[in-house]
Amino acid sequence: MPQVLILMGSQSDAATMRHTCEMLDQLGISHHSRITSAHRTPDRLAHVAETAEKDGFKVIIAGAGGSAHLPGMTASKTILPVFAVAVQSVSSPINDVAAILSNTQMPAGVPLPYAGLGKAGAQNAALSAARVLALSDEGLRARLQNFVERQTAGVPGYPDYAKSSG
Amino acid sequence: MPQVLILMGSQSDAATMRHTCEMLDQLGISHHSRITSAHRTPDRLAHVAETAEKDGFKVIIAGAGGSAHLPGMTASKTILPVFAVAVQSVSSPINDVAAILSNTQMPAGVPLPYAGLGKAGAQNAALSAARVLALSDEGLRARLQNFVERQTAGVPGYPDYAKSSG
Amino acid sequence: MPQVLILMGSQSDAATMRHTCEMLDQLGISHHSRITSAHRTPDRLAHVAETAEKDGFKVIIAGAGGSAHLPGMTASKTILPVFAVAVQSVSSPINDVAAILSNTQMPAGVPLPYAGLGKAGAQNAALSAARVLALSDEGLRARLQNFVERQTAGVPGYPDYAKSSG
Amino acid sequence: MPQVLILMGSQSDAATMRHTCEMLDQLGISHHSRITSAHRTPDRLAHVAETAEKDGFKVIIAGAGGSAHLPGMTASKTILPVFAVAVQSVSSPINDVAAILSNTQMPAGVPLPYAGLGKAGAQNAALSAARVLALSDEGLRARLQNFVERQTAGVPGYPDYAKSSG
Amino acid sequence: MPQVLILMGSQSDAATMRHTCEMLDQLGISHHSRITSAHRTPDRLAHVAETAEKDGFKVIIAGAGGSAHLPGMTASKTILPVFAVAVQSVSSPINDVAAILSNTQMPAGVPLPYAGLGKAGAQNAALSAARVLALSDEGLRARLQNFVERQTAGVPGYPDYAKSSG
Amino acid sequence: MPQVLILMGSQSDAATMRHTCEMLDQLGISHHSRITSAHRTPDRLAHVAETAEKDGFKVIIAGAGGSAHLPGMTASKTILPVFAVAVQSVSSPINDVAAILSNTQMPAGVPLPYAGLGKAGAQNAALSAARVLALSDEGLRARLQNFVERQTAGVPGYPDYAKSSG
Amino acid sequence: MPQVLILMGSQSDAATMRHTCEMLDQLGISHHSRITSAHRTPDRLAHVAETAEKDGFKVIIAGAGGSAHLPGMTASKTILPVFAVAVQSVSSPINDVAAILSNTQMPAGVPLPYAGLGKAGAQNAALSAARVLALSDEGLRARLQNFVERQTAGVPGYPDYAKSSG
Amino acid sequence: MPQVLILMGSQSDAATMRHTCEMLDQLGISHHSRITSAHRTPDRLAHVAETAEKDGFKVIIAGAGGSAHLPGMTASKTILPVFAVAVQSVSSPINDVAAILSNTQMPAGVPLPYAGLGKAGAQNAALSAARVLALSDEGLRARLQNFVERQTAGVPGYPDYAKSSG
Repeated sequence: MPQVLILMGSQSDAATMRHTCEMLDQLGISHHSRITSAHRTPDRLAHVAETAEKDGFKVIIAGAGGSAHLPGMTASKTILPVFAVAVQSVSSPINDVAAILSNTQMPAGVPLPYAGLGKAGAQNAALSAARVLALSDEGLRARLQNFVERQTAGVPGYPDYAKSSG
Repeated sequence: MPQVLILMGSQSDAATMRHTCEMLDQLGISHHSRITSAHRTPDRLAHVAETAEKDGFKVIIAGAGGSAHLPGMTASKTILPVFAVAVQSVSSPINDVAAILSNTQMPAGVPLPYAGLGKAGAQNAALSAARVLALSDEGLRARLQNFVERQTAGVPGYPDYAKSSG
Repeated sequence: MPQVLILMGSQSDAATMRHTCEMLDQLGISHHSRITSAHRTPDRLAHVAETAEKDGFKVIIAGAGGSAHLPGMTASKTILPVFAVAVQSVSSPINDVAAILSNTQMPAGVPLPYAGLGKAGAQNAALSAARVLALSDEGLRARLQNFVERQTAGVPGYPDYAKSSG
Repeated sequence: MPQVLILMGSQSDAATMRHTCEMLDQLGISHHSRITSAHRTPDRLAHVAETAEKDGFKVIIAGAGGSAHLPGMTASKTILPVFAVAVQSVSSPINDVAAILSNTQMPAGVPLPYAGLGKAGAQNAALSAARVLALSDEGLRARLQNFVERQTAGVPGYPDYAKSSG
Repeated sequence: MPQVLILMGSQSDAATMRHTCEMLDQLGISHHSRITSAHRTPDRLAHVAETAEKDGFKVIIAGAGGSAHLPGMTASKTILPVFAVAVQSVSSPINDVAAILSNTQMPAGVPLPYAGLGKAGAQNAALSAARVLALSDEGLRARLQNFVERQTAGVPGYPDYAKSSG
Repeated sequence: MPQVLILMGSQSDAATMRHTCEMLDQLGISHHSRITSAHRTPDRLAHVAETAEKDGFKVIIAGAGGSAHLPGMTASKTILPVFAVAVQSVSSPINDVAAILSNTQMPAGVPLPYAGLGKAGAQNAALSAARVLALSDEGLRARLQNFVERQTAGVPGYPDYAKSSG
Repeated sequence: MPQVLILMGSQSDAATMRHTCEMLDQLGISHHSRITSAHRTPDRLAHVAETAEKDGFKVIIAGAGGSAHLPGMTASKTILPVFAVAVQSVSSPINDVAAILSNTQMPAGVPLPYAGLGKAGAQNAALSAARVLALSDEGLRARLQNFVERQTAGVPGYPDYAKSSG
Repeated sequence: MPQVLILMGSQSDAATMRHTCEMLDQLGISHHSRITSAHRTPDRLAHVAETAEKDGFKVIIAGAGGSAHLPGMTASKTILPVFAVAVQSVSSPINDVAAILSNTQMPAGVPLPYAGLGKAGAQNAALSAARVLALSDEGLRARLQNFVERQTAGVPGYPDYAKSSG
């Protein structure tokens, strides 16, 4: 059974959420993706979120744009950790502000840790899940540690223009 | 059976939503109020929204603050008109921007006409419902017309300081 | 006589407001479109709004961008329900913020339910009108219900990349 | 006949607009104040704006808060110069952003020079009118010049704490 | 001697400010354009603003983007009416917010009526100047009145898609 | 050894972060609080974050306001899950926008799930930690489930004003 | 001759800028304060800024609120380093956004390093000046180093509530 | 040994920061560039910032985008003057607002003068460094003075369209 359940509101969100999948793949974490619109398929969303724990998932990552009710409604129907991703709009930054605030101004009592906007947010949601799962998986912990070390090592020392003058 | 169903996310929202009730009372429109948190009682919300039409309601008014998922989730579970109210936050204007955008950046396909912020929004939601219900209620139409005329007549002609110089 | 009156401020707004027309057509709702600028043809706007009810219209949808006074001024001259659409600017998001706030911060007493920004807002204004008109039109209610069911059925279950790993 | 017509949307705006009157008084400019709500008394507004020139006014100053349609609708009904003032809200900065943008994102063709927010805006609207009227009134020009000189002379050279150390 | 002095901060602002010139030409108002950067040529700006009245100008229009100190500094050095234009940035809406607020949050005592952003603002600044100059120029008043009437007449009655259904 | 490490930038942040502690106490989760300013004690912060895992902590919660570099710098020095809290400013909403964006626009590769602003954010950070720790602690899972059920049961059915009219 | 020249736009700015003085005093840096409004005393400002270097000042700190043209105009009239402070408004956060952006969106060619908003900005402007002056003043360098060390030492290790549970 | 140390968070920031280098070259100021990510190489950043003074640098310029913790963390590890640059995002203005606020809302005690956004900010950071270094370098002072004079002389007197009408 996959460990991470990835939810998104529509097919168009898949262009963002596949970055979550690719990062999970890179870390050797199994996952399963569903489309469950909060507004067009509210019953499907309620069902999928409610049964996620029983189905064996450990962590949920939910991505949506605009009003972005999907992540919060998911968090209201499970006690698994749910990480929110704001899918970036192609049409307006106002849509992105809506998605960020809709995910981050949740009322006390229903936690919805927000992982970020767009591709970087989708990747960081995967890394957030990895940090959680690594708490009880030594192999994953080592792979994650290795990922971080390679990332650090991959930062060049100098920009590609002449590094000094004078 | 009351005509307007008023939903709000918590007892603290009642201070705002009672202005909706008072305006409906003033226009002689019957109403019924429920607390149904999108995040703390998602099943109750789904049930109340889903059965509202069968219960005989004609219009729903839904008020919430912050992430404000209640109005949008209500609109996803009924085909009655749902008017959204953003309940104003006592702690931060950021919360109000969240509530405005969460209500106004809905995806195509699930309409959520937004009536406004705070007391003015709560009153205008009632007036929006009145305009809808007056389409098939001549008595209400007359009362609404009368309300507008009295409102117009009530605007003073001059400010209370000396109106002219020179 | 058409049921829905669609107002817009200029020919350039038509690219947005035709999405309202198409959605109304899809639901079998008759409509009539006018250009009436709040600033360039204020008398025409006042006349058109004032006579809309007598002309047999049931609902008005008014779209404008920038300062966007058209929807609010329309609402001040009729007691029909008026749904506002913010026409998205091609030149600046500041213009869109202006249109959203100009439509949503109306004073108490003159309701202007706001349907949204751009194409999605234009479509949701049509759906808002449909929900209102369906209250007294069983055939429309059925078509609207059918629209919602097809919309729900049309949401795919999985994104188009491989749905699971592991 | 007074030279400056001052319009405001409600009695509550008078607390701000009286600063316009006081500044005009200080400069010896005659004025006349009216309450004409764009939304509650649209016909009165249209009439007052339309007849202002014939009534002998030279300049109009229009103040409103929130959606703030009054100044723009005034400008659409006259070719006199109209200066807009955004009346500051006691309840939310969002209301003030609405008033600023509603006044400043006007479409090409209908000019609405915006004088500012709150008390400073109300005073500067009066000074804007004074600069305009001084173009053809030598006495006013001298009083305005004198006002500026006294203002310059009134700026202290040093703050009231010890001005230097060391 | 030209009646309107047009100031701008750099050659790149000319793409916007030429719309001011074209509108003034259309109304038969003479004008003269200068580049005077507030930050790169502060002395030139001080001199040009200070001598504008003596040089016979009646109205100044000042356009700048970003921090946009040019219009305000001009207003501080003359008692002629100064209308501000915010030149739109090609690189960021943040720059435009800066220009709008830098022009509109002036302190009490130094009026700087703000005409708007970009091309529409540049045109409306010209129309603002025209309204001022028409107060003492019957010929211009007639041309301005004619401009407004043609503008009103030029608004089409219907959008270019089929105007009605049903 | 406590399971949750709570970091904050100053003593003044403690008024917010104690809500995290109280929520953790309510759920029976052990915790340990430190003050480690990113800017005033960068070495202490680096040391505390770097050794947190070895010290036996499972989850870190980091709260800061304004520029809010503490949570992100913590996340860069550990592979434990780090949840960010934005401490609300008493002086300006601008400070809160800074804290929200500083926490939520992290680059890809260093995940920093953001729990929210002020008291609600502090409580939800605790609940986020609880959801993570409950994955491998059946007792905590039961307490958390119980907390959610009591929270749901605690939502009243009706506001405290008369619930219906008509 | 004092080393640091402190400019502010009005007496009301002194409540903020005295924090600059106190921090400079604490570090043993001599200073001199002037009020020079960009808009009410533009000639005084031009003169004071132009002669500051000749008068022996090494660094200028300029504070203003709202449109905040003072710091930028100072930077245009000297080649001394000028640090800007945004004086916080008592009436609206919009005024503060104006001051921040007016100071930070300067055109290329006229540098205006911005130190911050309100009391913290005023103190950090002093510390910025200290870092500059310490480059050629060993005694000051030692006092500044000492200030930083005491500041670091002054951060308590734990919040004042019980530091651990469990 | 170069005088100015230029830090940036990634290779992609180099497109902006090379404008800093080019401006320094133009003024004859020696410099050295490093990539040190606050989040991916926090230890390298701490080391580079901590040793900068001992290495003989006089001024640091640090550029980063988004959460932008690099400049602030640098300022916390040195007492050299550190000027911040916000690297402009290609994907969203929200990222730029984050970078601006993350750099400008620093707590009292750790100064981080902010030079601006994008290319203009990068160039002005170089000019800020030049103003600082010129305090103790007569040759640089002359070159900087010359740069300013040529810049002033380079502003054309008139826009490239016909400069006058009438």
